[in-house]
Amino acid sequence: MTDDAVTGSQDDAEIEIRFNSDGLVPAIAQDADSGEVLMLAYVSPTALKRTRETGQAHYYSRSREELWKKGETSGHTQHIREIRADCDADTILYLVEQTGGACHTGHQSCFYRTLDGTEVTERVFDPETVYE
Amino acid sequence: MTDDAVTGSQDDAEIEIRFNSDGLVPAIAQDADSGEVLMLAYVSPTALKRTRETGQAHYYSRSREELWKKGETSGHTQHIREIRADCDADTILYLVEQTGGACHTGHQSCFYRTLDGTEVTERVFDPETVYE
Repeated sequence: MTDDAVTGSQDDAEIEIRFNSDGLVPAIAQDADSGEVLMLAYVSPTALKRTRETGQAHYYSRSREELWKKGETSGHTQHIREIRADCDADTILYLVEQTGGACHTGHQSCFYRTLDGTEVTERVFDPETVYE
Repeated sequence: MTDDAVTGSQDDAEIEIRFNSDGLVPAIAQDADSGEVLMLAYVSPTALKRTRETGQAHYYSRSREELWKKGETSGHTQHIREIRADCDADTILYLVEQTGGACHTGHQSCFYRTLDGTEVTERVFDPETVYE
């Protein structure tokens, strides 16, 4: 094995994600085409594993304390195009193709308001027809 | 005061950010023009207040345990164009104009690698000349 081969192998080494003391890391979902930031949720090792195996975004619901496949109830799934880690490997970025809207309020993105409460985007679906 | 006026005032009410048990919320910084997700860091009430007062992104450094003005050392500041909150007000989105690169590694974004370690963007500055 040459030095180059060793270096190359190190450069492309799988990144070890640094889960926090709760066993989670924040994951940002971004629309892979429009670049819109859709949501932030948390990911457990199992959620990340399931995401990579299925190509569909999974998270860990802190309120329900369970693995959560995005869109399980609403049908508004997120197909994974790429997963990135940040420089210190304690945050994940999901680049996704979003079906429907990401937010339970009916908006494409959960970030639909400025801090003063002004809504800066329109709804893309009616939550009352999606969540019965 | 009419009913409409009351409704209008409620719709545009300042959002009360729900800081976590450590007194922080995650803040995503996104390039306001390119849409690139630059970094995720944490914000305290003071950091958020300072950001709004100055129009320059401030965070709270969990490792140094102190208020941190982005770019204080590197000069790579983030001018705030807009601040959004997510639907349950426990995550913030900074839309910024980034000077230089956001990442201490020299990349524009901290999310410069896929999970298998492949670098998907080039460096935009040499960290050795910026951090002496």
